Amino acid sequence: MAQRRQGGLDFCRRGWNKTAMDTDDLSTRILAGERRALARAITLVESGRADHRAQSLELLEKLRGHERAAMRIGLSGTPGVGKSTFIEAFGMMLTGLGLRVAVLAVDPSSARSGGSILGDKTRMERLSRDRNAFIRPSPSQSQLGGVARRTREAIDLCEASGFDVILIETVGVGQSETMVAEMSDLFLLLLAPAGGDELQGVKRGIMEMADILLINKADGDLKATATRTCADYAGALRLLRKRPQDPEGYPKALTVSAVEENGLDTAWEAMCELNDWRRANGHFDARRAAQARHWFEAEVRERLLERLTRDPVRGVMGELAAQVENGALTPSAAAQVLLEGALSAE
Amino acid sequence: MAQRRQGGLDFCRRGWNKTAMDTDDLSTRILAGERRALARAITLVESGRADHRAQSLELLEKLRGHERAAMRIGLSGTPGVGKSTFIEAFGMMLTGLGLRVAVLAVDPSSARSGGSILGDKTRMERLSRDRNAFIRPSPSQSQLGGVARRTREAIDLCEASGFDVILIETVGVGQSETMVAEMSDLFLLLLAPAGGDELQGVKRGIMEMADILLINKADGDLKATATRTCADYAGALRLLRKRPQDPEGYPKALTVSAVEENGLDTAWEAMCELNDWRRANGHFDARRAAQARHWFEAEVRERLLERLTRDPVRGVMGELAAQVENGALTPSAAAQVLLEGALSAE
Repeated sequence: MAQRRQGGLDFCRRGWNKTAMDTDDLSTRILAGERRALARAITLVESGRADHRAQSLELLEKLRGHERAAMRIGLSGTPGVGKSTFIEAFGMMLTGLGLRVAVLAVDPSSARSGGSILGDKTRMERLSRDRNAFIRPSPSQSQLGGVARRTREAIDLCEASGFDVILIETVGVGQSETMVAEMSDLFLLLLAPAGGDELQGVKRGIMEMADILLINKADGDLKATATRTCADYAGALRLLRKRPQDPEGYPKALTVSAVEENGLDTAWEAMCELNDWRRANGHFDARRAAQARHWFEAEVRERLLERLTRDPVRGVMGELAAQVENGALTPSAAAQVLLEGALSAE
Repeated sequence: MAQRRQGGLDFCRRGWNKTAMDTDDLSTRILAGERRALARAITLVESGRADHRAQSLELLEKLRGHERAAMRIGLSGTPGVGKSTFIEAFGMMLTGLGLRVAVLAVDPSSARSGGSILGDKTRMERLSRDRNAFIRPSPSQSQLGGVARRTREAIDLCEASGFDVILIETVGVGQSETMVAEMSDLFLLLLAPAGGDELQGVKRGIMEMADILLINKADGDLKATATRTCADYAGALRLLRKRPQDPEGYPKALTVSAVEENGLDTAWEAMCELNDWRRANGHFDARRAAQARHWFEAEVRERLLERLTRDPVRGVMGELAAQVENGALTPSAAAQVLLEGALSAE
């Protein structure tokens, strides 16, 4: 098994190239909760090849009616805040409650090397051995297709496969947090204990996306600082206007210790309380519908722009750009030529 | 004449609808420096109508070979800094030197009302009566088509019409400064005298785009503050890395008094020195070529995305979005339908 894992994506890719992809069979096995089928399907949606895209759409279409409503939890936090330790401890607690947990990592900076794959498994060693957990590292950049689309589709696959909780983890960098929040039911922000001045470090936009702030490392020497930090954030949250999708008291700040496994149950209770309230009040469905619309529009935009980088469009665009640079064509005239020619001929 | 002006764009529009547009005639008259022909041509490029777009492209194509290299000067500054007073005094100085000066305003917030048109003329009363000056206010939002494209094309028209200096004025709001800098040979930032702390107010990105900082209001009570502010900015500029397109000493900070008409000659000498150096060292041509390429690519992107708002695409998109929201289609499947259907059928 260890050897197979080392092969990573390559192993899976060989697997499906050898035999024609049978999406009927695959969907049946995914619905039955087979982990290998799920892994294979995720590799399929991560592929940039046109035939794999077609198969992915077919597969997702077959699974659509069977989706079950997992709780999709987005989780962000800067490096060093203890995300892996938290996910492992939190995930183990959930599987201990009899829940099936999937962890998807979104790392916009992940390199081509297979390092991150082994890395992810290593840093959550106990959880990765848990039969009720499924950990999927961030695909390497060599995979084509938008990070957002593949993550979204991986979520759908995990949901169809019967997982109860799907954790979507991202590093606190740029746009990835917004993206993850846009595909989650709940969004958690993991924070480190810090002095008053450092509170400013959380961007206001991120604060406003977060449903629950978790101040980690509430243990040992840092326990008092963590408690104070939590109170500071709680004060800051009260300054934000109450959102219609929240019951009283949310968003909220809580302390946890991933290392000592303290506060994880309270955090989970808060997530369930918030999620139940939103389901009862229609906000859960409304949010999923709005997210679906958002991703539809985003994908249309992205794929339209993608056309610009395709052969032969890219070649024609390069030639036109050269003519624009040397003054033989105005930018508008060149744009006209491209839009009426190469881009409309598809 | 005053009555005609009051009609503004409407007057011009009636003008060209009555008779078929003869772009041969129009281009000849623009090349001869006829102001009315220029005004009419700018109104044409500002129009969103498809037939007007086609005529615009035809006209710009005819003028292309005849473009003369005016100095395109972008000018930004927050409201209250004295932009109008500066442009009027600076413009009058330039026409006094025998130069022809065009002023184009880019106001992303300009309302539909004709108010801004009269406003612009009023606030530069002397310059607007100067035979060697041409002032074109920002088009109202009712005009379709991108602000960037119309401004760029208006610049080309002014250049073909033989203007020596084209001032492109914008308020210091968001993206408009970047846009104006991307179509200028030189970019000026007009600043008010201020205390040390307020220096932080200039966004670093804007500072880095500016070729010359002009601290205005170096007169009366504010003269000493302006001199000190100028020294502070000069110090800040020395902290930025020297850019390859700059000779020694640039970007630089200078004081001016638009009201007392002081320092305008020194500022103009600095602009000429910088522009001459860039021409001699190939940076002028390289910058224009890079800008042309940039606008070509920007226009292609923008026009591709524009298709999404067109009938019948918009209608199909709305229907698909509804199906995505209620779960009848996945976002990816709906995007596929749109891209293979409505959008490719054009």
